[in-house]
Amino acid sequence: HRMDARSMWLYRWYYSDAFQWILGFIIFLVLFLAFIETPSSFTRTSDVRYRSKPWNPPCGLTESIEVLCLLGFATDLSVKSYLVGWPQFRKSLWLVAYLVVLVVSFVDWMVSLSLVCQEPLRLRRLLRPFFLLQNSSMMKKMLKCIRWSLPEMASVVLLLALHLCVFTMLGMLLFTGEKDDGQDRERLIYFRNLAESLTSLLVLLTTANNPDIMIPAYSKNRAFAIFFIVFTLIGSLFLMNLLTAIIYNQFRGYLLKSIQASLFRKRLGTRAAYEVLSWMAKGEGGPQGVGVRAQDLLHVLQKVQASSTHKQAVMEQVRARSDGLLSADEFQKLFSEFDKSLTKEHPPPPEYQSPFLRSAQFLFGHPYFDYLGNFFVLANLVSICVFLVQDAGILPQDRDDFVLGILNCVFILYYLAEVLLKVFALGLPGYLSYPSNVFDGLLTVILLVLEISTLAVYRFPHPGWKPEMRGLLSLWDMVRLVNMLIVFRFLRIIPSMKLMAVVASTILGLIRNMRAFGGILVVVYYVFAIVGINLFQGVIVAPGNNSLAPNGSAPCGSYEQLDYWANNFDDFAAALVTLWNVMVVNNWQVFLDAYQRYSGPWSKIYFVLWWLVSSVIWINLFLALILENFLHKWDRRGDLQSLSGDEITTVD
Amino acid sequence: HRMDARSMWLYRWYYSDAFQWILGFIIFLVLFLAFIETPSSFTRTSDVRYRSKPWNPPCGLTESIEVLCLLGFATDLSVKSYLVGWPQFRKSLWLVAYLVVLVVSFVDWMVSLSLVCQEPLRLRRLLRPFFLLQNSSMMKKMLKCIRWSLPEMASVVLLLALHLCVFTMLGMLLFTGEKDDGQDRERLIYFRNLAESLTSLLVLLTTANNPDIMIPAYSKNRAFAIFFIVFTLIGSLFLMNLLTAIIYNQFRGYLLKSIQASLFRKRLGTRAAYEVLSWMAKGEGGPQGVGVRAQDLLHVLQKVQASSTHKQAVMEQVRARSDGLLSADEFQKLFSEFDKSLTKEHPPPPEYQSPFLRSAQFLFGHPYFDYLGNFFVLANLVSICVFLVQDAGILPQDRDDFVLGILNCVFILYYLAEVLLKVFALGLPGYLSYPSNVFDGLLTVILLVLEISTLAVYRFPHPGWKPEMRGLLSLWDMVRLVNMLIVFRFLRIIPSMKLMAVVASTILGLIRNMRAFGGILVVVYYVFAIVGINLFQGVIVAPGNNSLAPNGSAPCGSYEQLDYWANNFDDFAAALVTLWNVMVVNNWQVFLDAYQRYSGPWSKIYFVLWWLVSSVIWINLFLALILENFLHKWDRRGDLQSLSGDEITTVD
Repeated sequence: HRMDARSMWLYRWYYSDAFQWILGFIIFLVLFLAFIETPSSFTRTSDVRYRSKPWNPPCGLTESIEVLCLLGFATDLSVKSYLVGWPQFRKSLWLVAYLVVLVVSFVDWMVSLSLVCQEPLRLRRLLRPFFLLQNSSMMKKMLKCIRWSLPEMASVVLLLALHLCVFTMLGMLLFTGEKDDGQDRERLIYFRNLAESLTSLLVLLTTANNPDIMIPAYSKNRAFAIFFIVFTLIGSLFLMNLLTAIIYNQFRGYLLKSIQASLFRKRLGTRAAYEVLSWMAKGEGGPQGVGVRAQDLLHVLQKVQASSTHKQAVMEQVRARSDGLLSADEFQKLFSEFDKSLTKEHPPPPEYQSPFLRSAQFLFGHPYFDYLGNFFVLANLVSICVFLVQDAGILPQDRDDFVLGILNCVFILYYLAEVLLKVFALGLPGYLSYPSNVFDGLLTVILLVLEISTLAVYRFPHPGWKPEMRGLLSLWDMVRLVNMLIVFRFLRIIPSMKLMAVVASTILGLIRNMRAFGGILVVVYYVFAIVGINLFQGVIVAPGNNSLAPNGSAPCGSYEQLDYWANNFDDFAAALVTLWNVMVVNNWQVFLDAYQRYSGPWSKIYFVLWWLVSSVIWINLFLALILENFLHKWDRRGDLQSLSGDEITTVD
Repeated sequence: HRMDARSMWLYRWYYSDAFQWILGFIIFLVLFLAFIETPSSFTRTSDVRYRSKPWNPPCGLTESIEVLCLLGFATDLSVKSYLVGWPQFRKSLWLVAYLVVLVVSFVDWMVSLSLVCQEPLRLRRLLRPFFLLQNSSMMKKMLKCIRWSLPEMASVVLLLALHLCVFTMLGMLLFTGEKDDGQDRERLIYFRNLAESLTSLLVLLTTANNPDIMIPAYSKNRAFAIFFIVFTLIGSLFLMNLLTAIIYNQFRGYLLKSIQASLFRKRLGTRAAYEVLSWMAKGEGGPQGVGVRAQDLLHVLQKVQASSTHKQAVMEQVRARSDGLLSADEFQKLFSEFDKSLTKEHPPPPEYQSPFLRSAQFLFGHPYFDYLGNFFVLANLVSICVFLVQDAGILPQDRDDFVLGILNCVFILYYLAEVLLKVFALGLPGYLSYPSNVFDGLLTVILLVLEISTLAVYRFPHPGWKPEMRGLLSLWDMVRLVNMLIVFRFLRIIPSMKLMAVVASTILGLIRNMRAFGGILVVVYYVFAIVGINLFQGVIVAPGNNSLAPNGSAPCGSYEQLDYWANNFDDFAAALVTLWNVMVVNNWQVFLDAYQRYSGPWSKIYFVLWWLVSSVIWINLFLALILENFLHKWDRRGDLQSLSGDEITTVD
């Protein structure tokens, strides 16, 4: 680190919120380009049968955006390397890689321009996720953690491969198909040759072809079921869960260690600050002993950037003991104030003079009023539900929802009244201090606007109030939108049910903890989608005109019969959805089979690799993270394992 | 507990290994009856199209076996209740339930007999798993543990239900199918009415219809994919993993607690023994102070039932310090000897006189000789594999495997030589002391017998050595069997690879720990299979003769088109396989749909219940157990968490 004043100023300025926000936006922009670039995703559907010609940006549009982003990254790199200094720069692998990636991107960009955007391969698209990785220290840490657990995972994957091979050979020996017709069918469908048998059993490992694969043999003889059940039991239950255990084991340490490390760093920083300040006090010839003068601390605190509530709490405490010097222990204790998450205090409700208003305030501020509101939401939901069930049998054009229209009108009026009464009882700041109220109020306002515009265009509901007549959105869409918003509004009941509130709050907290994790997911999806586009763009061709008739000839369970035409790699958005569908694993053998036919047998490697990365590693990672977070939260043995602040003090 | 001498004698006798083994056998027998009883499983296949008329036992055969078993249980109950005593008996819910179950079983048995086995419902079949539960304290403990985690699980299941309901309503509002053809198809297939939408999304929660459900809408407009992806993300990734976390959280305590409790009980027992013995020493006027005389302890030890190796180790230690009295601490330390798992010592290899034999012994006892053997197994496997690949393209009757026959012959001779040389090097006891050698030798002997009999019947392999000619098994089957055994023998390489050895040994250890768990699985499967048989026996009827032609009319993806005919509830074995297939979850919507059509819409409840119990609870339980076991084993922080013997001492 450079420590001179100018560098420090640069450092402060560079790591300010605004600048980091700009950097984040640039990263988002450069990643988002994939949707716009040549196989652009701006079509209504990705189905090869119905797809219109996509809009392709003129050469130079995305390139000019991209070069701006790259210049942004170049400044980022130069500032970072200046701050770090040359000797450190050479040692930091990430920064060197940053430089290499930038240079390659620039070169590739120039090649693109010189070929007027007709280049066969756009290499820099593959490198873009690196910018995302590079910018987040949490993601780097998580990558390191994944790398650590790779050897153990490799051993289990090896075991899985062995398991697969042994059972493939057993299966091929079992279903040689000589004796009778049934075994022969098993062989012909699933065990025709080595590659096919391996694929069949690999898919069975993910249970995606579970009953089907055993059917031909099992129909002939019960005993053949044992082969498949044992295979699934060992492979899918034992070995797969073993992988989960390994990844979880690696991660269990990870979170705890990172919390401890960050705590340790914080303590170290406080201690250093204490030493500096006490040195200052000594230098000025302080009264007696070693310590920090309170006024010094206050002086510093005022310059520090921190959340104002925390700062004020600390400053108050400092002022309270402004006499004499602060010892190191007291100093540390002061800063532990920063760790406390202050319980948010709600602004006091307005005070009314009239006793009538007061009793009304008591009435509408009472939790029972909330329950009444919940009851009304539920009633509204039930009414919608009843109409949905009623309308299910009727053809759309014969439906007459004017009763539902009136009901919705009434309910929305009630919601409005509820919001107003609550604002009256709690005061506007008090009302807005509850997130659930904000959610509620916002939805109510939107509902009101929608309802008023509906009434304005279509007048009050009356018999024969036909939907779909005029306006921007048809009345039908309006009503549907209103109904969907009402369903959303129903979610406000969650905080009222205690158990569910706990679970829901934990999930919300989890999402906050998972930004690094989500980032890695984005990186993985991005890379695989780009590779997929380069490999498989355009290999799926729409069926000829004669076979546009409902898939007469395609065998059951094939890509064509299942109408999977929209799942292709012809543009970025479609590739993402296709990858998602393969990640979910169900029916992925259909993709394996289709791409083998359309593109060649090597396509299997891509899909198996994606399965390994996404479904095996990533989903397990996700589970590990959830387990870690929840156990951390629920740990009844409380302080011992959770933050262990005391432990670290003793380590010091 | 009764404590008089006769009761103690009865107690000892009753809880001896032999008697407990008999009880276990009776339980197995009574459970096994389900395979024999009236819808008996003794047909070659359960496929309704090809199934022959099953053999049904004459009335009275299974009944007489059953009554013998019941009498056995009655004695078990009476002995247990005698030992416990009447006041305790009334308090023990399990014993009371045992009595009730027995009485109901007897009554039901008499009803059966009086109706000449033509009763419509055999209630006691449902109650049989209770005998298994009742006999295992571990299973009772685990049940209690599951019961504790039910409230938390219920809250998550409630959240799941809410999630499902909200998305069902949103889906029904989204896919009302008015505007164009595509949305209409989505509605017609998956969102026709409330029940169908709920089912579709419930199945999507298990990802069993993942890409299919989104295809009609997604083909029309990309944006509809978001609805399904968000649903899967929340439901399948968050909420389902939340369930795992809850169950794991409950279980994490469970194993640790049970280990601590058993340790505590052991310590308490030792302490009590110490008090008794020291009281004896005092009573006889021992020399000085409090303590146990060594000779008293030796006297007792000789009468105690324990593994002889442990006993000898303790007795040696006692003899070593036979002077004076043993203090309480020393006494405890002595008994900790019992906890140590002694590392098994291999018998010494035989000593040969001749230097040539000695060097040969060194050579063949060396690990490299093992590696050579592994190499040969691998070579054999590769040769089989090559022939499999080669033969895949050739019709079975045209194959000529005489080269493979010769190769196998040679390899088996090598295996025999290897076994003999190893026995020579290590001595027979030394050879047998390694489990891997036992496995190896056994397979080699079987291979040898098979090969010799093959050679005896079909003579030495020669060109045109046609398979399938005469004998008990055709040559073809013989060769296949030999090949399969060779594949099995390949597994001996596992211990040679360190990482895999660790993982494999952990899995083996796990299986031992999972007996209680497996018992609960048996109970659950048994109950559901019996209920399924009573509900769905015979509802699936074979298609008429005209439709025996390859499923011309059935729509793709239906039970009939997929030939799932063998998956029914017509007998116990078939029911088990059907339940397994539903548990694995893939394609379970096919079963939902088929049984809805054949049996009525209420059948869904059965399948959804089974899904909840098996796939949601049980699989998560399994994962929790695996996690618990592995983390326990791998815990690097070693003693602190693993056995925590010292902790308990300090608690004392």
